[in-house]
Amino acid sequence: MFDNIHEECGVFGVYTEEARENANTVYYGLYALQHRGQESCGIVVNDSGVFSYHKGIGLVNEVFDGENLGKLPKGRIAIGHVRYSTTGNTTSANIQPLVVRHIKGPMAIAHNGNLVNALELRRSFELQGAIFHSTNDTEVISYAITQARLNSGSIQEAVEKAMYKIKGAYSLIIMSAKKMILARDPNGFRPLCIGKLPDGGIATASESCALDSVGAEYIRDIEPGEIAVIGEKGMESIKTHCGGKSAMCVFEYVYIARPDSVIAGQSVHGARVQAGRFLAKEHPVEADIVVGVPDSGLEAALGYSLESGIPYGVGFVRNRYVGRTFIQPAQGMRDDSVRIKLNPVADAVRGKRVVMIDDSIVRGTTCGRTVNLLREAGASEVHVRISSPPFISPCFFGIDIDSRDKLIACRMSLDEIRRSIHADSLGYLSPENVLKIAPKACCGFCSGCFTGKYPIEVPDEMPKDKFESKIVQQ
Amino acid sequence: MFDNIHEECGVFGVYTEEARENANTVYYGLYALQHRGQESCGIVVNDSGVFSYHKGIGLVNEVFDGENLGKLPKGRIAIGHVRYSTTGNTTSANIQPLVVRHIKGPMAIAHNGNLVNALELRRSFELQGAIFHSTNDTEVISYAITQARLNSGSIQEAVEKAMYKIKGAYSLIIMSAKKMILARDPNGFRPLCIGKLPDGGIATASESCALDSVGAEYIRDIEPGEIAVIGEKGMESIKTHCGGKSAMCVFEYVYIARPDSVIAGQSVHGARVQAGRFLAKEHPVEADIVVGVPDSGLEAALGYSLESGIPYGVGFVRNRYVGRTFIQPAQGMRDDSVRIKLNPVADAVRGKRVVMIDDSIVRGTTCGRTVNLLREAGASEVHVRISSPPFISPCFFGIDIDSRDKLIACRMSLDEIRRSIHADSLGYLSPENVLKIAPKACCGFCSGCFTGKYPIEVPDEMPKDKFESKIVQQ
Amino acid sequence: MFDNIHEECGVFGVYTEEARENANTVYYGLYALQHRGQESCGIVVNDSGVFSYHKGIGLVNEVFDGENLGKLPKGRIAIGHVRYSTTGNTTSANIQPLVVRHIKGPMAIAHNGNLVNALELRRSFELQGAIFHSTNDTEVISYAITQARLNSGSIQEAVEKAMYKIKGAYSLIIMSAKKMILARDPNGFRPLCIGKLPDGGIATASESCALDSVGAEYIRDIEPGEIAVIGEKGMESIKTHCGGKSAMCVFEYVYIARPDSVIAGQSVHGARVQAGRFLAKEHPVEADIVVGVPDSGLEAALGYSLESGIPYGVGFVRNRYVGRTFIQPAQGMRDDSVRIKLNPVADAVRGKRVVMIDDSIVRGTTCGRTVNLLREAGASEVHVRISSPPFISPCFFGIDIDSRDKLIACRMSLDEIRRSIHADSLGYLSPENVLKIAPKACCGFCSGCFTGKYPIEVPDEMPKDKFESKIVQQ
Amino acid sequence: MFDNIHEECGVFGVYTEEARENANTVYYGLYALQHRGQESCGIVVNDSGVFSYHKGIGLVNEVFDGENLGKLPKGRIAIGHVRYSTTGNTTSANIQPLVVRHIKGPMAIAHNGNLVNALELRRSFELQGAIFHSTNDTEVISYAITQARLNSGSIQEAVEKAMYKIKGAYSLIIMSAKKMILARDPNGFRPLCIGKLPDGGIATASESCALDSVGAEYIRDIEPGEIAVIGEKGMESIKTHCGGKSAMCVFEYVYIARPDSVIAGQSVHGARVQAGRFLAKEHPVEADIVVGVPDSGLEAALGYSLESGIPYGVGFVRNRYVGRTFIQPAQGMRDDSVRIKLNPVADAVRGKRVVMIDDSIVRGTTCGRTVNLLREAGASEVHVRISSPPFISPCFFGIDIDSRDKLIACRMSLDEIRRSIHADSLGYLSPENVLKIAPKACCGFCSGCFTGKYPIEVPDEMPKDKFESKIVQQ
Repeated sequence: MFDNIHEECGVFGVYTEEARENANTVYYGLYALQHRGQESCGIVVNDSGVFSYHKGIGLVNEVFDGENLGKLPKGRIAIGHVRYSTTGNTTSANIQPLVVRHIKGPMAIAHNGNLVNALELRRSFELQGAIFHSTNDTEVISYAITQARLNSGSIQEAVEKAMYKIKGAYSLIIMSAKKMILARDPNGFRPLCIGKLPDGGIATASESCALDSVGAEYIRDIEPGEIAVIGEKGMESIKTHCGGKSAMCVFEYVYIARPDSVIAGQSVHGARVQAGRFLAKEHPVEADIVVGVPDSGLEAALGYSLESGIPYGVGFVRNRYVGRTFIQPAQGMRDDSVRIKLNPVADAVRGKRVVMIDDSIVRGTTCGRTVNLLREAGASEVHVRISSPPFISPCFFGIDIDSRDKLIACRMSLDEIRRSIHADSLGYLSPENVLKIAPKACCGFCSGCFTGKYPIEVPDEMPKDKFESKIVQQ
Repeated sequence: MFDNIHEECGVFGVYTEEARENANTVYYGLYALQHRGQESCGIVVNDSGVFSYHKGIGLVNEVFDGENLGKLPKGRIAIGHVRYSTTGNTTSANIQPLVVRHIKGPMAIAHNGNLVNALELRRSFELQGAIFHSTNDTEVISYAITQARLNSGSIQEAVEKAMYKIKGAYSLIIMSAKKMILARDPNGFRPLCIGKLPDGGIATASESCALDSVGAEYIRDIEPGEIAVIGEKGMESIKTHCGGKSAMCVFEYVYIARPDSVIAGQSVHGARVQAGRFLAKEHPVEADIVVGVPDSGLEAALGYSLESGIPYGVGFVRNRYVGRTFIQPAQGMRDDSVRIKLNPVADAVRGKRVVMIDDSIVRGTTCGRTVNLLREAGASEVHVRISSPPFISPCFFGIDIDSRDKLIACRMSLDEIRRSIHADSLGYLSPENVLKIAPKACCGFCSGCFTGKYPIEVPDEMPKDKFESKIVQQ
Repeated sequence: MFDNIHEECGVFGVYTEEARENANTVYYGLYALQHRGQESCGIVVNDSGVFSYHKGIGLVNEVFDGENLGKLPKGRIAIGHVRYSTTGNTTSANIQPLVVRHIKGPMAIAHNGNLVNALELRRSFELQGAIFHSTNDTEVISYAITQARLNSGSIQEAVEKAMYKIKGAYSLIIMSAKKMILARDPNGFRPLCIGKLPDGGIATASESCALDSVGAEYIRDIEPGEIAVIGEKGMESIKTHCGGKSAMCVFEYVYIARPDSVIAGQSVHGARVQAGRFLAKEHPVEADIVVGVPDSGLEAALGYSLESGIPYGVGFVRNRYVGRTFIQPAQGMRDDSVRIKLNPVADAVRGKRVVMIDDSIVRGTTCGRTVNLLREAGASEVHVRISSPPFISPCFFGIDIDSRDKLIACRMSLDEIRRSIHADSLGYLSPENVLKIAPKACCGFCSGCFTGKYPIEVPDEMPKDKFESKIVQQ
Repeated sequence: MFDNIHEECGVFGVYTEEARENANTVYYGLYALQHRGQESCGIVVNDSGVFSYHKGIGLVNEVFDGENLGKLPKGRIAIGHVRYSTTGNTTSANIQPLVVRHIKGPMAIAHNGNLVNALELRRSFELQGAIFHSTNDTEVISYAITQARLNSGSIQEAVEKAMYKIKGAYSLIIMSAKKMILARDPNGFRPLCIGKLPDGGIATASESCALDSVGAEYIRDIEPGEIAVIGEKGMESIKTHCGGKSAMCVFEYVYIARPDSVIAGQSVHGARVQAGRFLAKEHPVEADIVVGVPDSGLEAALGYSLESGIPYGVGFVRNRYVGRTFIQPAQGMRDDSVRIKLNPVADAVRGKRVVMIDDSIVRGTTCGRTVNLLREAGASEVHVRISSPPFISPCFFGIDIDSRDKLIACRMSLDEIRRSIHADSLGYLSPENVLKIAPKACCGFCSGCFTGKYPIEVPDEMPKDKFESKIVQQ
């Protein structure tokens, strides 16, 4: 019903010298990464080589309770994962971290990203007699590592070899009997950083906000192409795959990451404020108030206000209690669940010319309804400003935008879109400026969804269910 | 662990001329009132005199799902309730609406407020042979109405008579076989308003935001002391108990109500902005940025910024996914669950002199930790401004503040508090100005928790479990 | 779908001098009484005057688990209840034991039986302003006791007075702050016995098998009309209401009670064997094997075999795993869920003339299907013998038989029934002999369901929902 | 606590020409096989090549409800499995049927039995780069088939080739995109039979009682070593592996199978009666009554009675409501949960010399307690007769008996056992006669657990967790 964008995953891991209640640390880390995936989650603990795990469908606070979290033993290593499934097929076999046994014992993998050659890899493994339980890339990656392991002296060597085979976006946390291994694809599409735990030990997370939530001090981002091996000898780095063209997803700054995270040296909050400033320069308008659509539009609204001098206001209240199991309103009622989730503050906008800042428009339905809310609340004009360029192409690297035929910017002109969303004016951030919102970032960017130009070769279309699973769990 | 303040209840009701899916409408109304009570909830539908209900412990979206909501029949009247229990004894017998049978058939009651003479009333009923299943005021109220009903020609007459007996705060929705009756205590401590449904029919709610969420048009507030009878002849009003001293809880504007609600003609959002403006006048300071503690501090921060000219900033990210079943961090980790729920945006505050606006301080622990978060994030100074006066006395009218010996303002001087919360300066809104934050409100106010002076006689101390239940449900 | 007969309740209680884990003892006692009610159950513990309880819908092992049972505190008194609801309205308000507060503090009541004047009693209480939460007799009984308590020096005196008001069948366990009180109606329709716990203390139960299951030694049955008060001074007996016409339900021996129970001095097993012997004398037949329909037909089959000399055989296997949530077969499959629950042993009956013993026939459907199972398994003849007389009248004293218009014996002649169930011959136990199956029992019997003659005055028809509840819980 | 014997599995499958609600048929079939495994279960439906499944931990009626069963689509093929895990590690990954994807699409396997070379097979697959999700034999079997499939023209050819690799006991149902394939190991350790559905189509089951429960007509047993391929061309049979030494588990007749099943042409009921007759001849005794320990001792008791002339009696009542989640009695109570589950009928045994028939003795604890129950109920003498020989050796073919050091017959002489169980006399069925209890069976037998002599080579000891899983699911 809503035209949402979904990040597929968040990953978190902990390594300490002695066995601790690291499952708890991962639990709090996953909490802070919940915005990256709300469909399922899991935690695996390595207690002297024995892997114990709990996984389930739901939010972190639905899947874990004091009882099952308490049953997970102390251990030196623990990793976790939150996931949003893009394929519509939420089977328990797909919940990560993936935990398998291979020639060297147990192995667990948490993966954020999306491979572009998973299907052909799977086919090649099947031709050697492999069987698959799930339909996710992670099982393909685990085969690549497992097969490389047969001719490798160590797990890190196997990971290094496997990286010659797997193509696309991946930020991986791999747990073996004795080590935690981090790996990021050569383009560094998805973030991954490490920090130091207050009482010693290493934490790793998709975003720095998760390090903060467990009291860990940010050290640095894992480099594109880097393999970091954390074991008894401390951390060592393998950089065979480094040196490629860095292409971090710029939409992480716009929408996905939490504003208190710092990615590649650039604060997400700062990038959003900057996007708002650019917007004010690119698309100025006479107005009485600037409001952001919660939550990700708020900082850009602040930037727009600061740059334009138009006062900032609180235009909406977001209902914090709308959970996963929200029941859609029946036909009898106005088919308007936006109204349940988001409420305009009439007192703030009544009789005013309003600049409304949102992060993006996918199909346009939600945006149009949001504009209507402001009008019903008495806004005299509504000027929509979007803190990113129009979506015109799918993402092949881990974000579920939508197919081209549903993207409003592929179907309509700017003015058609404006009319469709009932706005008095409409302005998008330009593709040039979106690449400048993160000036402190020490990396290049992928903005393929806004340009159709990708840093590596991609398939023609993003398949909804690339593995044609033919297996459905009820 | 946290020093929270709790509103006990929110109520919602619907009356339509023909039988509709009114349980659904109540469901969405309760969603919008969820902030008034997160512990349990229930919905009762009146289908031609047969009452069907579903109740449970948890949030609206935990208690209700498509299956049980779908089982509730169509009906002309439906009422609902969300509740926070102050007594620590969450038994299913206490979940509202209360549904009972009396001499005239079934009756359901949803109550927001707190009686000051419930204990003596209960005793008097027991002396006549009454038995009680619950420990809430609502069952006492239902006895008062039931006994009055024996000598009354109608349910509204019984309610009118009962109101001579019950003392304290109450906003009631009563459902009988044929009518929906609304009643508000003579002081009007708790809000209650009515609106017109889009396709005809009346909706009633604790706050207007719930009317908005179901597309109903706000008509007016129920007056203090008023009884509104909604039945086949439309709505009629009984005003025998009107004309007393109006004393709406001013803390509804400061903290409890949702900013998009309008109470007694005054927007809550506007009142909070005004409180911030007053604060800026009363306690000016040289600073670089004003930030609000989410969610209720945000509007006051905006007011402070507007009045003072100090730029408004986004200082915190609140984790939206921390649910009821959040597991408290173990001893091993820093005992700091504030860190999980609230995260400072370092980029916004680093190196800056920060004005931090919060709505209130109860014990001081949370406030002190929040100040620390800003300092750890690099704030050079933290000036705390509170958009209400210090709590020095309990609330007897439906809000669970805390006992006097735990209130920091009863134990410490202003400067001691400032030091205790590690602030560079501290300023509260004055008791005079808090009464002026809602200039458009057509009512008087109760600010007893700030002054110790109450509009009606109160007991010496607010008992934690006034009924000494002696019954515990596991 | 099945034409079952339902006993409504089983009760169990424990009193010990010091506080013990009596909730556990009640748990095991209820297990042994599960056959008396499978719909809901509950346990209440009295810990120094504080009542803690847990109740729920389902079997004992579904409602209770280690966690909730473990949360119930130690206490000197604990009582429990298993229930089958005859009214079709399983609301949580109806789950027993009923736990209420009255003038003297908390009180809990567990009731087995059925009042014949509950409706008029309820009406009279309502005329005094009473409100009711449930639709069961137990709440009416609690009002009768509570009102009597106002003018009584003790709870037992109040029970004694209340017994002048309540009419019908009741075996009660009442728990007050300090005492456990047992009461049985003057006719003693339903059983209730007491025993001595291995480490001291008193246990009471509907049937002696529950005493056995907790290792308690049977002492004696509570007499019809007796009130037994168990408190700090030991047990005392009030016999004001004794001396009436004893009329124990004879169907307890035939079907309801467990064969290892002893009621009024008579073993249930022995009574069933005797019923089989009488059947063999009344309705002899030439046959090769006698088989019983599990479970209650087995002993009567043994008796028939012993008396007739025809060999006893195992004719059926009953599926022990068919639980409450069994899904009825869809239309596509033969509409024959008898086949799922009961399976013939072809090897035992193939080519044989079979005497099949069952305890009763209600509508005839199940019996007909059971006969068919034997025929399909190869039986050459099937002679049906029923170890009780035909049902021709409802039970007003706690057993849910069926309304007269559905009872096959009210609609058909003996030969019509025989044809309807596809039997080669059919014989019922005579109304005379059913009164002789328990020769050791020191009591008279009620056989009203077989004769239409009841020991006390009864209403014209057994109402399905005597309270016309108008309240439905989803 | 109890010294039980556990069968590991039951399997059921259906093939029809058109798509039907075959999931329902499997559901009822699994109900009838529940005695073969109570820990977990699952159903997979093949709807035109798309496999939909639901699996879970618990009994069939706990795992399946109307909702999830209703979500399984219609399909031409459906297979199911009930399982008891012997390894103590009940992870969801181990619940069967196993559903995987391989080179040819989806495949599902339900397996009853136990391989003796699973560990070495797994090792060899791992050396080729295989990864394992579970710790059961079924995943090993699926690899064997998948790898053979690479060089085979059909799934049946792959199964045929795989059978050269896998050694031990297996009755398999394999579902591919278009076929249902049945396979039984060359010795035929575990049963597997087929039947004709009433409206056309084939059903297959571990036992014929499951065919009966869905109204299917028994056709024949699958032969040892046979592969039956059921597809669009009907059923064809591959007998490459037939002709080996037939060695059906004789303990299926004694204890495991349901008495109404017929295995290899022999009724289980008849075999048990015959065992009882042999016992009476081998170990006669003067006594007044013969009672069986429910449920599997009942038929043997009948046989003993028929042969000896000593009257048959009902000595015990078994509590039908003791479910999986039964809470063990606390220390305070007599540590005697036998008392909860099994109750003696004092009336039947008081003052009598009792012959008590049970199917086996493992550790002796339960048997001793059962004898005690009879003595407490008043039996003057208790003569124990066991309808199978003493266990002296583990089972390697799918039954979880116990390790040698816990088997009472490995530790004590006959007379020591007799004293340990408090019996007046004790007699086991002889190893010679146990082979004669099924005279109509068209097969040889394995009685390795009674003799230590097995039809194929076995490891030295039965490992408790042969795969050393190192992975634990919480």
